[in-house]
Amino acid sequence: MISKESVIKDLKEVRSRSPLVHNITNSVVMNNTANALLAIGASPVMAHAVEEVEDMVKIASSLVINIGTLSPSWVEAMLKAGLAAKKKNIPVVLDPVGAGATAYRTQTSLQIIRECKPDVIRGNASEIMALTCKQSDTKGVDSVASSESAVHGATTLAKDTGAIIIISGPVDYVVDNKSVIQVQNGSPLMGKVTGMGCTATALVGAFVAVNCDFIMSSAHAMAVMGIAGELAAKRSAGPGTMQAYFLDELYKLSDKDITNLLKAVS
Amino acid sequence: MISKESVIKDLKEVRSRSPLVHNITNSVVMNNTANALLAIGASPVMAHAVEEVEDMVKIASSLVINIGTLSPSWVEAMLKAGLAAKKKNIPVVLDPVGAGATAYRTQTSLQIIRECKPDVIRGNASEIMALTCKQSDTKGVDSVASSESAVHGATTLAKDTGAIIIISGPVDYVVDNKSVIQVQNGSPLMGKVTGMGCTATALVGAFVAVNCDFIMSSAHAMAVMGIAGELAAKRSAGPGTMQAYFLDELYKLSDKDITNLLKAVS
Amino acid sequence: MISKESVIKDLKEVRSRSPLVHNITNSVVMNNTANALLAIGASPVMAHAVEEVEDMVKIASSLVINIGTLSPSWVEAMLKAGLAAKKKNIPVVLDPVGAGATAYRTQTSLQIIRECKPDVIRGNASEIMALTCKQSDTKGVDSVASSESAVHGATTLAKDTGAIIIISGPVDYVVDNKSVIQVQNGSPLMGKVTGMGCTATALVGAFVAVNCDFIMSSAHAMAVMGIAGELAAKRSAGPGTMQAYFLDELYKLSDKDITNLLKAVS
Repeated sequence: MISKESVIKDLKEVRSRSPLVHNITNSVVMNNTANALLAIGASPVMAHAVEEVEDMVKIASSLVINIGTLSPSWVEAMLKAGLAAKKKNIPVVLDPVGAGATAYRTQTSLQIIRECKPDVIRGNASEIMALTCKQSDTKGVDSVASSESAVHGATTLAKDTGAIIIISGPVDYVVDNKSVIQVQNGSPLMGKVTGMGCTATALVGAFVAVNCDFIMSSAHAMAVMGIAGELAAKRSAGPGTMQAYFLDELYKLSDKDITNLLKAVS
Repeated sequence: MISKESVIKDLKEVRSRSPLVHNITNSVVMNNTANALLAIGASPVMAHAVEEVEDMVKIASSLVINIGTLSPSWVEAMLKAGLAAKKKNIPVVLDPVGAGATAYRTQTSLQIIRECKPDVIRGNASEIMALTCKQSDTKGVDSVASSESAVHGATTLAKDTGAIIIISGPVDYVVDNKSVIQVQNGSPLMGKVTGMGCTATALVGAFVAVNCDFIMSSAHAMAVMGIAGELAAKRSAGPGTMQAYFLDELYKLSDKDITNLLKAVS
Repeated sequence: MISKESVIKDLKEVRSRSPLVHNITNSVVMNNTANALLAIGASPVMAHAVEEVEDMVKIASSLVINIGTLSPSWVEAMLKAGLAAKKKNIPVVLDPVGAGATAYRTQTSLQIIRECKPDVIRGNASEIMALTCKQSDTKGVDSVASSESAVHGATTLAKDTGAIIIISGPVDYVVDNKSVIQVQNGSPLMGKVTGMGCTATALVGAFVAVNCDFIMSSAHAMAVMGIAGELAAKRSAGPGTMQAYFLDELYKLSDKDITNLLKAVS
């Protein structure tokens, strides 16, 4: 059961162990996600060359694969890194950015799922539905489906793949083959900052590195994300200051903030 | 004729229709331009793989091609996307970043113009002059020519290509084959933030998606850019806060701001 | 001898001559380093295509090579640009991001050193030690060694390569084959913002472009970096605002700030 105590415990673990999170991620958000990982206390590294991803996986505590600006050589590196991570038995997190928007993205996501067997998959409702091969509309990388509508598909996807599925949206649903955790933290302003979903995925990468009960660590990461987002939105005049304040809040996030603000249902 | 009312109308259209703007843009500014598009109410997507650009164009309302950090596979994708966009009849906007600085950039820009027939081309004075094949000095991606001096060349370029030409600078000139609109909004601090020109081009991508009178929608985008820049500069202590506040101002921009601040001459 | 006067003089030179700094740098930090160069008064250009790097070097005043997200085509461009820069006799600065973390990074760094003979090499202690082929631990792109421990290796590296070696950390050591300058400015919060090391390297690129006494200009750049960092940290609530305020402080940095805050020992 997710609780204030369990979120606080994992955040403390991230900060004290500072896991090295290897990211193969998109060019739009690299700076944000590296900064979010630093702010939460983890240690980010970005590396995408086929020549080095296996070596980088060797020193990493988790691997985050994000297909936001994919191309063939990147996909090759993602697959290679994913296999190395599974072999080494460190968690693999997949962000299928824009799955459903183009066949290339949908097929690449499905190939990564098939070959690398990610432990956690985080997307918006449209992306998750695209992975279940259900017909779904999408607007590029933005969702046009409601999160609620994707929960059934996510459960099926969890059963088929063995992965934890996170559908992020106004309410985040963290789903395995039998249960659903709802995290109700967050702010609409987060949707006005590019890469907030990608940042959530990166934070999941940090939390699964310190807690191998992946449904719990995934939910903890989403809770931390949402709480920091709420705190930042309160102070922000718009999405520009939001981006900066969000990192500040991640960095300062206290046990008290979590205790006061956590809204989650197991 | 550009007027307060016409700017306000187009901004309302962008916000209500939230057009999907497909960007093939440079690695320096991807985050800024995606955030600017979100802040103004549009929906950005970044995709540059040859394997998917045609699919992405299919769901997009406009295409922005920016050569700021080009390489051969990116150029191939730009051409492919540009042709698909013309075929689908959605507007194409070109930002010839650094044209004139290297032969590769000048020739790539001219090839894109020839093959994809962009509807709007936005650059600084040096870049626009480089496209007219006039001898012109440049300082990398910064202009050393005055905007005024480029207007004559821009008119010729507009005649030759059928495109609207935007020369941005302290005064922005929006030019077609017979008329010139001047937008006098903006702040010198904008020149101290990287990618402000690229951001202007992205905003043009949003406005041409909702108004096919391209000289008007281009001028409206430049006006919105300049007004948000003026508002942000007033509050900024330097280029770092400027970058954040600019996004806040785009997001908050009101009819009243436009009414009070617009300085444009048709 | 580094002094308030010598730092002030070089900063003035950067601002008045606004050198064009050609960066071949990583995707994580491109935006930050371009903004830092603009804020300090230099003119940044990013270009990495094999097809154009030699042309860009022709108009540049210095070249910065940063291997933070390398891949074979980028390495080819780095080598080509480095050779062109040496031929033109403009300074070359190398940032061996993550040397020691993977063989690919270590070997690429050593190849660039061998073939392009950089004038300045800046890294953290782990990276510099990796270049001396001493066994050293690393945590991805973060150092686990102390700067002090790397000074001896840096001196050897300086002798072997003829380059100025900068080890950045809580104290920055700027080393040639016979002397060591310590710059003691900075703030721990700088380590919580991604790419601060890369930004330091970019600023070195601006300063060596205006002063060919490279140990001095390197130390001046590190001093300006550290002083702006101290000023920004005082006002920052965390790493998000730090990133913005740092650029503001670079932009506003006054002779008085330097006079009041410089802590350096030759």
